[in-house]
Amino acid sequence: MIDFAMLLAQDAGFGTMGVGLAMGLAIIGASLGIGRIGGNAVEAIARQPEASGTISTQMLISAALIEGVTVVALILMFLK
Amino acid sequence: MIDFAMLLAQDAGFGTMGVGLAMGLAIIGASLGIGRIGGNAVEAIARQPEASGTISTQMLISAALIEGVTVVALILMFLK
Amino acid sequence: MIDFAMLLAQDAGFGTMGVGLAMGLAIIGASLGIGRIGGNAVEAIARQPEASGTISTQMLISAALIEGVTVVALILMFLK
Repeated sequence: MIDFAMLLAQDAGFGTMGVGLAMGLAIIGASLGIGRIGGNAVEAIARQPEASGTISTQMLISAALIEGVTVVALILMFLK
Repeated sequence: MIDFAMLLAQDAGFGTMGVGLAMGLAIIGASLGIGRIGGNAVEAIARQPEASGTISTQMLISAALIEGVTVVALILMFLK
Repeated sequence: MIDFAMLLAQDAGFGTMGVGLAMGLAIIGASLGIGRIGGNAVEAIARQPEASGTISTQMLISAALIEGVTVVALILMFLK
């Protein structure tokens, strides 16, 4: 019984489970965000084709902001 | 029985699980927020291409506010 | 039995889990709020480009209010 407990307590895996869930949730979030930006950007270009230059610049800037925090979070999760 | 409890209490990994979930939830939140701003910004530029300068400035300011608290939260979570 | 409870109470990690979840939920809330403000601000500028000055001022004030309480909450959670 004590051996069982010792093994259970050493590493029950809950931490790793949390890190895994976190990475999954992070990718869900990032994908929803970048997906919304990209989806609206192509609709916007369809409505104003002559403004495609500025639209794609703004799309890239805002998508890169999401990409940035997500990569930082993934690295911090991996180190955890 | 006491040994069991002692070992169970040492580190069951629930703290790490919580930190992981927190990072994941934070990225979901940040992405939804920046995604909404970026998505509306490209739509707004499509409607008023001549106002793209001020639109992109406001997009960047509000997205940077979300980016800021998220990075602060990620660092605080990692230190926890 | 008392020893068991005492030891279990020492550190099962549930406290840290709660702090982590709180930070994650706080960022979700702040991002949804600032995202809504920023998203509506760029739409408003597209509709009235000549009013971009007052729109961006009001956007910044309301977004900074959300930013303020969120940073205070993050610090208080971290000290917990």
